[in-house]
Amino acid sequence: MTENAAAKVQEAQDAALELAQLSDEQRRAGLQAIADAIDERHDEILTANEKDVGAGEKLLAEGEYSQALVDRLKLSPSKLEDISEMVRSVAEQDDPLGKTLESRRLDEDLELYRVAVPIGVVGTVFESRPDALVQIAALSLKSGNAVILKGGSEASHSNRVLYEIIEEATADLPDGWAQLIEAREDVQALLEMDEQIDLLMPRGSSEFVQYIQDNTSIPVLGHTEGICHVYVDDAADLEMATEIAFDAKVQYPAVCNAVETLLVHEDVAADFLPEMVAQYEEAGVDLRGDDRVRDVVDVGAATDEDWATEYGDLELSIKVVDSLEAALEHITTYGSKHTESIVTEDDGRAGRFMRSLDSASVFHNASTRFADGFRYGLGAEVGISTGKIHARGPVGLEGLTTYKYHLEGDGHRVATYAGENAKPYLHEEFDGEWTPGGSSE
Amino acid sequence: MTENAAAKVQEAQDAALELAQLSDEQRRAGLQAIADAIDERHDEILTANEKDVGAGEKLLAEGEYSQALVDRLKLSPSKLEDISEMVRSVAEQDDPLGKTLESRRLDEDLELYRVAVPIGVVGTVFESRPDALVQIAALSLKSGNAVILKGGSEASHSNRVLYEIIEEATADLPDGWAQLIEAREDVQALLEMDEQIDLLMPRGSSEFVQYIQDNTSIPVLGHTEGICHVYVDDAADLEMATEIAFDAKVQYPAVCNAVETLLVHEDVAADFLPEMVAQYEEAGVDLRGDDRVRDVVDVGAATDEDWATEYGDLELSIKVVDSLEAALEHITTYGSKHTESIVTEDDGRAGRFMRSLDSASVFHNASTRFADGFRYGLGAEVGISTGKIHARGPVGLEGLTTYKYHLEGDGHRVATYAGENAKPYLHEEFDGEWTPGGSSE
Repeated sequence: MTENAAAKVQEAQDAALELAQLSDEQRRAGLQAIADAIDERHDEILTANEKDVGAGEKLLAEGEYSQALVDRLKLSPSKLEDISEMVRSVAEQDDPLGKTLESRRLDEDLELYRVAVPIGVVGTVFESRPDALVQIAALSLKSGNAVILKGGSEASHSNRVLYEIIEEATADLPDGWAQLIEAREDVQALLEMDEQIDLLMPRGSSEFVQYIQDNTSIPVLGHTEGICHVYVDDAADLEMATEIAFDAKVQYPAVCNAVETLLVHEDVAADFLPEMVAQYEEAGVDLRGDDRVRDVVDVGAATDEDWATEYGDLELSIKVVDSLEAALEHITTYGSKHTESIVTEDDGRAGRFMRSLDSASVFHNASTRFADGFRYGLGAEVGISTGKIHARGPVGLEGLTTYKYHLEGDGHRVATYAGENAKPYLHEEFDGEWTPGGSSE
Repeated sequence: MTENAAAKVQEAQDAALELAQLSDEQRRAGLQAIADAIDERHDEILTANEKDVGAGEKLLAEGEYSQALVDRLKLSPSKLEDISEMVRSVAEQDDPLGKTLESRRLDEDLELYRVAVPIGVVGTVFESRPDALVQIAALSLKSGNAVILKGGSEASHSNRVLYEIIEEATADLPDGWAQLIEAREDVQALLEMDEQIDLLMPRGSSEFVQYIQDNTSIPVLGHTEGICHVYVDDAADLEMATEIAFDAKVQYPAVCNAVETLLVHEDVAADFLPEMVAQYEEAGVDLRGDDRVRDVVDVGAATDEDWATEYGDLELSIKVVDSLEAALEHITTYGSKHTESIVTEDDGRAGRFMRSLDSASVFHNASTRFADGFRYGLGAEVGISTGKIHARGPVGLEGLTTYKYHLEGDGHRVATYAGENAKPYLHEEFDGEWTPGGSSE
């Protein structure tokens, strides 16, 4: 590991202990200061960003970079306004820290409290978008975590100035709470620091997140693929099915919760497909179906690869299935456990669908596009997790917290509760917030 | 990866989907059947165990194995009774599955439920103790998880017969829910199956758990070191401090929540130490102190290594500190974030101690020995986690669950809530258990 990266991570660890002690008011003030500084320093940020974009465009001309990459890189005054607004909205969220999650009386005057605390040091590795740096820093500060930021070299000028703004605006906060890592060789170093970094939140393509996951034993909160399904049951309200399937693909096709494959029960295929396909085609969706779909409507042929592809675009594959079971089997085989929806008027079948699938979000008569932290009412979205441990599906600020047990006693010894004349435990839940010395019940 | 291990893990994945559908009654019946079968087949188990113990004793004579390892290997009729009783007590626990953890109305007739579900496939790798196999299998079954069991070769005969008993007793349950892996080369294969195995629970020494953590990107629920501290403040009730510090070391010194280092405020050292040391010495505790301790009492000299050692035995290091801050600094430098206790009558200082330390359990006027799932009232203890993600400190069956989001709609589309005339979300919490088709509110 480079000495530089190690020293920065050490600084972050030290800062984390102090950061955990700050009040929500102090953390809010820090976030407001960041937002104000971004608003005041547009010119400086845009000048730095132009250097990155200029270099990106040169590499685009040489065929090294894609247009999409250059687009993601580019900041504008209105984008900067969106960024400072995002920081302010994170500031205004409810404090995720300090809450007593559980209180249990183990015995008279022996009270156990489970209290929400920051995780410690979180790290991010992100591609191109400089807004990712500000977003992760804001979420980390709100949740009391120190943060290590490693951006892509293509955005180095933008990242540097945004980091400096954050550092200067939070000069009152524990020194070193946010750290910028710039050298490429430091990424490998970060991935190996499983003793020092408690959680990684990579931001980038599915392949990028997968690469990070495969190359670290630090827990990763991130999302890889989103291959989502809508299943139109034979007991579906077909008008409702058409509206849901249309929304799930067309409302915003570039995102992970958009539908990839539409499964249709054979008994309703002839009624459902012609109108559905007409609507999709009018919206410019490129459709591919299996043989039984193509018996009913005139679309391209789907291959096995279609079933396993996240399109991220106005493309959709359609398959006719014999039964609910066949739909479940298809989803289990090809799905990525992200989001699936059944359209049916039969609650029993809806229950079977929702219980049987091991996906983070399972819907009944609703569009897959609802799978999102904002829509779920989680407040600021930390990300969507395709892991099952710690946080699953859309993740709010709670995903950046863990807990500690606080035990308040009065000279209690375990010996009292062991051996022949062991006193039994009470183990009574009670309502009470932890305060030093005992409950504020 | 060996084909054998891959096939077994695939079987477990298939079984996991079915296992998640079983009722608590079915899972309880399976556990009762396992307990009954263990009770009925003592002879068979003990015969197999004798082979392992015999081989172990040979290796002990050759200096390859330690006495402790052979002791851990050995089963007896009374140990088998303890094991079947443990299985029955796991069976009787409250069902960790199916609970609705949160219900939120996103809009009229659009209800989101967060529902507790099994994680999927859990794996364990354990050393010597054949009871670990039964314990992990029981906890997995109760929580609806398929399980991969890999024991040490030193216990292979015992593990095999216990596994066969479990398999036969649960013939009614989804085929392949528990899998035994025996070949040494399959351990490496398991550690690489991060796509198939959702959680690992290694059982063994700190070094062993650390090895597993360092060599897999599968999330690990386990505990490494427990270097625990008791700090006697100058505002402590010294009689209470003596009782707590005694209990924390002597009540059961072999476990991870026993105290390693006693920190004593300089102002009370002369009053506190002589009586404390007399009691420890009477109980046979081997004591080491820093210079300021040795100014007051006659004990051996502590080295820097003492501060960083988990004794697991009747050994203790003692240090005099200038202040609460110095105690915090010592604990932050040398501790392992397991369990620390302050003895003081000053609630403000207790609060500072508990807030400042990043340990899973922080106590006020209570023995460190309380840090345990049973004492905490968590029911069956899955383990103690020294990680911060997912589950921290003592972990109950809840640690083997994750959640899914169930959304019940009535044809809801995201388009309604987007764009110029976007309908606002309600985002109202409500009380209600998920049932297919909507709430049972």
